[in-house]
Amino acid sequence: MAKENFSIKSLGVCRIDAPQGQAFFIADDSSILIDASMAGCKKCKGVPDALEQAGPRQKIFFEPSAVRAGIVTCGGLCPGLNDVIRALTMVIWYRYGVRKITGFKYGYEGLCTSPSHPPIDLTPDLVADIHKHGGTILGTSRGHHDPAKMVDFLHEHKINILFTIGGDGTQRGAMKIAEEVERRGLQIAVVGIPKTIDNDISFTERTFGFETAVAMSEIPITCVHMEAKGVRNGIGLVKLMGRESGFVAAYAALASSDVNLVLVPEVPFLMKNLFSFLEDRMKRKSHAVIVVAEGAGQEFVPVEGTDASGNKKLGDIGIFLKKTIADHFAKIQNPVNVRYIDPSYIIRSAPANADDSVFCFRLSENAVHAAMAGKTAMVVGLWNGHFVHVPMKKATHTRKKINPTESLWQSVLHNTGQPDLCGNY
Amino acid sequence: MAKENFSIKSLGVCRIDAPQGQAFFIADDSSILIDASMAGCKKCKGVPDALEQAGPRQKIFFEPSAVRAGIVTCGGLCPGLNDVIRALTMVIWYRYGVRKITGFKYGYEGLCTSPSHPPIDLTPDLVADIHKHGGTILGTSRGHHDPAKMVDFLHEHKINILFTIGGDGTQRGAMKIAEEVERRGLQIAVVGIPKTIDNDISFTERTFGFETAVAMSEIPITCVHMEAKGVRNGIGLVKLMGRESGFVAAYAALASSDVNLVLVPEVPFLMKNLFSFLEDRMKRKSHAVIVVAEGAGQEFVPVEGTDASGNKKLGDIGIFLKKTIADHFAKIQNPVNVRYIDPSYIIRSAPANADDSVFCFRLSENAVHAAMAGKTAMVVGLWNGHFVHVPMKKATHTRKKINPTESLWQSVLHNTGQPDLCGNY
Amino acid sequence: MAKENFSIKSLGVCRIDAPQGQAFFIADDSSILIDASMAGCKKCKGVPDALEQAGPRQKIFFEPSAVRAGIVTCGGLCPGLNDVIRALTMVIWYRYGVRKITGFKYGYEGLCTSPSHPPIDLTPDLVADIHKHGGTILGTSRGHHDPAKMVDFLHEHKINILFTIGGDGTQRGAMKIAEEVERRGLQIAVVGIPKTIDNDISFTERTFGFETAVAMSEIPITCVHMEAKGVRNGIGLVKLMGRESGFVAAYAALASSDVNLVLVPEVPFLMKNLFSFLEDRMKRKSHAVIVVAEGAGQEFVPVEGTDASGNKKLGDIGIFLKKTIADHFAKIQNPVNVRYIDPSYIIRSAPANADDSVFCFRLSENAVHAAMAGKTAMVVGLWNGHFVHVPMKKATHTRKKINPTESLWQSVLHNTGQPDLCGNY
Amino acid sequence: MAKENFSIKSLGVCRIDAPQGQAFFIADDSSILIDASMAGCKKCKGVPDALEQAGPRQKIFFEPSAVRAGIVTCGGLCPGLNDVIRALTMVIWYRYGVRKITGFKYGYEGLCTSPSHPPIDLTPDLVADIHKHGGTILGTSRGHHDPAKMVDFLHEHKINILFTIGGDGTQRGAMKIAEEVERRGLQIAVVGIPKTIDNDISFTERTFGFETAVAMSEIPITCVHMEAKGVRNGIGLVKLMGRESGFVAAYAALASSDVNLVLVPEVPFLMKNLFSFLEDRMKRKSHAVIVVAEGAGQEFVPVEGTDASGNKKLGDIGIFLKKTIADHFAKIQNPVNVRYIDPSYIIRSAPANADDSVFCFRLSENAVHAAMAGKTAMVVGLWNGHFVHVPMKKATHTRKKINPTESLWQSVLHNTGQPDLCGNY
Repeated sequence: MAKENFSIKSLGVCRIDAPQGQAFFIADDSSILIDASMAGCKKCKGVPDALEQAGPRQKIFFEPSAVRAGIVTCGGLCPGLNDVIRALTMVIWYRYGVRKITGFKYGYEGLCTSPSHPPIDLTPDLVADIHKHGGTILGTSRGHHDPAKMVDFLHEHKINILFTIGGDGTQRGAMKIAEEVERRGLQIAVVGIPKTIDNDISFTERTFGFETAVAMSEIPITCVHMEAKGVRNGIGLVKLMGRESGFVAAYAALASSDVNLVLVPEVPFLMKNLFSFLEDRMKRKSHAVIVVAEGAGQEFVPVEGTDASGNKKLGDIGIFLKKTIADHFAKIQNPVNVRYIDPSYIIRSAPANADDSVFCFRLSENAVHAAMAGKTAMVVGLWNGHFVHVPMKKATHTRKKINPTESLWQSVLHNTGQPDLCGNY
Repeated sequence: MAKENFSIKSLGVCRIDAPQGQAFFIADDSSILIDASMAGCKKCKGVPDALEQAGPRQKIFFEPSAVRAGIVTCGGLCPGLNDVIRALTMVIWYRYGVRKITGFKYGYEGLCTSPSHPPIDLTPDLVADIHKHGGTILGTSRGHHDPAKMVDFLHEHKINILFTIGGDGTQRGAMKIAEEVERRGLQIAVVGIPKTIDNDISFTERTFGFETAVAMSEIPITCVHMEAKGVRNGIGLVKLMGRESGFVAAYAALASSDVNLVLVPEVPFLMKNLFSFLEDRMKRKSHAVIVVAEGAGQEFVPVEGTDASGNKKLGDIGIFLKKTIADHFAKIQNPVNVRYIDPSYIIRSAPANADDSVFCFRLSENAVHAAMAGKTAMVVGLWNGHFVHVPMKKATHTRKKINPTESLWQSVLHNTGQPDLCGNY
Repeated sequence: MAKENFSIKSLGVCRIDAPQGQAFFIADDSSILIDASMAGCKKCKGVPDALEQAGPRQKIFFEPSAVRAGIVTCGGLCPGLNDVIRALTMVIWYRYGVRKITGFKYGYEGLCTSPSHPPIDLTPDLVADIHKHGGTILGTSRGHHDPAKMVDFLHEHKINILFTIGGDGTQRGAMKIAEEVERRGLQIAVVGIPKTIDNDISFTERTFGFETAVAMSEIPITCVHMEAKGVRNGIGLVKLMGRESGFVAAYAALASSDVNLVLVPEVPFLMKNLFSFLEDRMKRKSHAVIVVAEGAGQEFVPVEGTDASGNKKLGDIGIFLKKTIADHFAKIQNPVNVRYIDPSYIIRSAPANADDSVFCFRLSENAVHAAMAGKTAMVVGLWNGHFVHVPMKKATHTRKKINPTESLWQSVLHNTGQPDLCGNY
Repeated sequence: MAKENFSIKSLGVCRIDAPQGQAFFIADDSSILIDASMAGCKKCKGVPDALEQAGPRQKIFFEPSAVRAGIVTCGGLCPGLNDVIRALTMVIWYRYGVRKITGFKYGYEGLCTSPSHPPIDLTPDLVADIHKHGGTILGTSRGHHDPAKMVDFLHEHKINILFTIGGDGTQRGAMKIAEEVERRGLQIAVVGIPKTIDNDISFTERTFGFETAVAMSEIPITCVHMEAKGVRNGIGLVKLMGRESGFVAAYAALASSDVNLVLVPEVPFLMKNLFSFLEDRMKRKSHAVIVVAEGAGQEFVPVEGTDASGNKKLGDIGIFLKKTIADHFAKIQNPVNVRYIDPSYIIRSAPANADDSVFCFRLSENAVHAAMAGKTAMVVGLWNGHFVHVPMKKATHTRKKINPTESLWQSVLHNTGQPDLCGNY
């Protein structure tokens, strides 16, 4: 059983038999170790940290015929949003027999007392093919709204299960909704499906859309590689997603094997070392390919303030590098051609690839199981290969990041051949 | 036979039998009507304008064993460059038995007395698979060079056939080389393969890479369509190639059928009408997709000067529209989300699609036939479904453009439903 | 004006003004030369063969509000069917204001007195996104039906424009419907959109779906190339569409440049020469790639009878070659690994690529213009770059084929390096 | 530390410092739990089963300058083979400084005393771009060879590290080589990289190429879906890989969400139930899509014997179902159109997708680390998210299969809505 800070809140005791008499259930006290190493197992004297295992429960909390489920998608686009909307609808409809499923439009705006666009009824027919296309049929938006008003709205619409699909800002908002629900003694389960293309949510080893994002990143990387090789002293530069965590950039470089330099938020670099590396590379190969995560090198492009989602604003490291590198080589009279791409929209708006579609379906199934069992204030995640429940508080507390002294970053160094750009190069 | 201004220059009389004794040859006086309508045939009393038909000649000018062929690629990347390099090499090697084929690096820079990078030998083994990848294995550059020096260089390297792959600037440069060759009484055939992703070369109904560019344009159009539908009042905006001719934008809109507005250089528009159209569209549909050719609406973004290739510099109509549209809707207190993509590099660096690969092969075959027959100062083209020879002077004299009163633009209007944005809307 | 056998039948005099007062119209006596060469223009003393030019007419035959249009798709799947259904619907709705558009299900079966599935109403909303997917939303079938009964059905449903999308069997059926209509003195325009993935309809230089088929053929060709290179003495074999005309096979080979041997119906071959070629190739390269059109080498696989569409049944040349080649090399104790793919469904079910989508839209526009002008018993085609009207009788009279002594086949020989496999090899 | 049966053999004590003084190393006694659940941790009283963790060791066994590494690829094609060849070469070259790397041609045939084709030298330049293409540059073959002769050959060529890329037959062969090496007291490390597109190797949760295979399966599934919907009573049928384990079929169905029935080896079915399901489906929807793993329903298609790799021969369940289903519906006078595809080659010959490329690189890195540390008779795998060493004996002992009572198969049932086809339907 999970220790206190990983324990999952519940709306109450589950007394109702799950429908359809299926044979497969997960015991409610099953849990998955956070550290799957032998050392991890041993060090805690039998009570290591663990996460509640997800899956269908034999006893559920909600009577299916009494359920009104709602779905909302928030934040930027991410591959797989329609897969998740589709799967939530299909599974709660067919597996549990729920017939009232509502899609709220344009994120939390759709939970306001007078939303700009009315909610829509979600049915299997309506959602059958939506996963073939990118985007979200519900629309999305950024920004915070008063939890009290949103709970008023949910109560008024008799919603008792709310699925919140979004990033850490969204899940923090969902947590406030769940707290307000609890304060009022209502019975509304709030279950999050974490959506972060950066794959930076804690206690889930994978988030949907991430693999597709990595795959889509090959388009601009191959492109700037061709462009860089196509001119004398060509330097291809691609800015990828990654506000605080460079997973997309790291994986994209590993997938392509065309990249010579990866810059991520977790690994600082000095411009003089970056110049030295490029000068050397121009001499040896006449071209180079750089991938930079949007959150890397923020000390060079300081800005202030936050966006509508409450995220710290980022300076544009891509534009900065493009200009600074061109200027440097002009100054040393060895001009280079920098070809720069910021493919953000092209990546975010793609439909999920096959493996992400599988993941979306299974993740959403488990979100439905959790909600029907009355779990709340939690998100579904994947840990050590098992679907798990993670308290929203834990999931949003710190970001998952690349550890530069561990295996993934070492793979990047081996793949690219890039040196340490921080110390004495 | 073609009238005077379409007649093709030749290095001399063709006395050598074509190798391999194949049965298929084109008579040297075959020609293709410029106007294939009945009216065109009748109006000129038997001597309508016509273009010399391309194809293998029974008698050729060069003794294959004496040929040293050179290939150069100039200007921006374009899908199919490697297909053309490959096909020229393969056909002149296998069909004619030529064994000395040289690739000059980085455009006309490679024809300078001391090029930054030495030329490379092109063989069937080297070029066998290059067409699977975008870019150009020869590299490219922009900018003019002294024809006299380039002819010195060619003479010194004993090149007697030069294939120039490039746009109208490149072919004007090639024409000057051919003139200098003629002035000196040398025997160097200069044969151009027109490369313009805009498809704006006169007297060729198609240029290589154009169809691939249209196909690749679907990526950003689908993307901004998803993005525009994914938010309240979303406006997707894509800037496509098309300095003076909007063919890429027009075809991309027809291919996608997701576009609501196409702006091209040939069809002026008023900003107030564009705003009215968008206001109306936001009311009816809450989202819109706009495709703008880079050369459209230049009166709104005046700039001066020319680039290294001698092309008039263009103001950035994409950035202008993005800002101006957002500002307008902010002012009328109905804010919109503009999602803007400039996919230029992604389109230019793509490998040729299947149909372009076929076209590249057949176009290059005909360029080889022309060169071996001693034709010079000409480019190969496609007209009324036949490969033809076009004097460089005619090909570069005026640009091919969309005629707004003819069939193609009418198709665009039918497909998009866009109104006349110029008059009283 | 076209000579007698190319003249287009009409339901009567066009007295009604085309709607919307647009400026662009095609004069009804515009025509396009069949032979666009200078020789063609000269030889006929001013009256060369020509085809009526397609396009919008200033005066039309049908009052739009009185029109009930019907659409039917017949025969096998072909990329672009949904594009054509969509474009016919969109253009007749928006350009002409017609509001009654009916889709008949499962080909001519849907025109029977009691069709298995009822017709459906086609509206812009219904068809908006169908072109993103392969197949046909109307379904299709093979087989003939009694023209008299189909005309009864059309009359009963008050259809006055029928669009028949299908191959030569379908258009012959459509011709019989048109004849029956004429016999009864009815006013039903029957306009065909030729659908043949083989691109073998006479007097149209291109049919929709053909380019996509060529592009999709790259998948199995690349695959067997990899498979063939991946084993000792690997021979990759792909059977492509092409009952009597080998255009798909020829273009696919040119597009890929990985093919060593192309077998088409128009060019006979001897098995002993094919073996000699392969033995030689195994010695030199240890692998080979063969593309065979389904109608090639039928003398080796004789069968009798016709299919439901009335097409002569074909023996399976793919299976035959696979076995015969393997047996031959086993016999000479130099066993080979033959990897055979018949990708027919994968090619036929693909969505149209970008260029085919453009073509489908423009072709369908012209079909609508023709029908509204009361033209009948004709199909729309493309000739010398212009959309034209072709009498169904001419279009279905003979098939367009590859001429082995002309340019296209020569390109194939140059590209593959394959020898003459017919004579004394 | 792992218990006895998971312990890894070693050539001897590691006394040499790993080159380059990097900071990241894995302690040699690190291990990963086989069961990562809390129950798993508790049940074994502190010594649960575990697998040795992979990664770079601080002390290695081989002096890099003395290493001659060999690589061999065996069995059928699989996406990622070239990625693995490339990564092994790159990492052992750049990370360890090894300069003698040999690729043996056509599988174990290349290790015979007189191989049909000589080995090739692998260098970074040679392998730089091979991962962009499917297949294997080394070629492959099936079949067993005498371990003694192969060890003679390795010894003669002074190979001291052999990487064997192949399935369980290959790894059993490798185990015999390792045993023969041990018997002779030689110092040759034999390290396997498991290659099974079926993903059925024990103790590795993922094998390379599997995700790509699932992704490629979408092509035929989408195709037969279009074909099935395009005719009356259309039934699309796709046979996918999966001799004893249906993972590809299960994941492909989950990815597509277009599949109505998944048949896998692990879940028996009765033909009468299958017919009942399809009859019902034809009534409700007029079309259906079936995916069948090649090893499913073998009781209906009994065959005897084994193939060259020693695998039990399989009857062709795809052909059987195609015929049997068509016959059944003909008999009940409700004929169906069955569209059947066996896309095996198309899937196997594809290049690795992005996520598989990442996996191949990291897997190969760990194989290099293991070999340099003198580990032998083992394969690298992934378990609970960590790279691990698995004794060849354990890896090939039993196959990993779908457990029909657990989560994955339940997801398939939810996704497809298919009933239990085994009991009383």
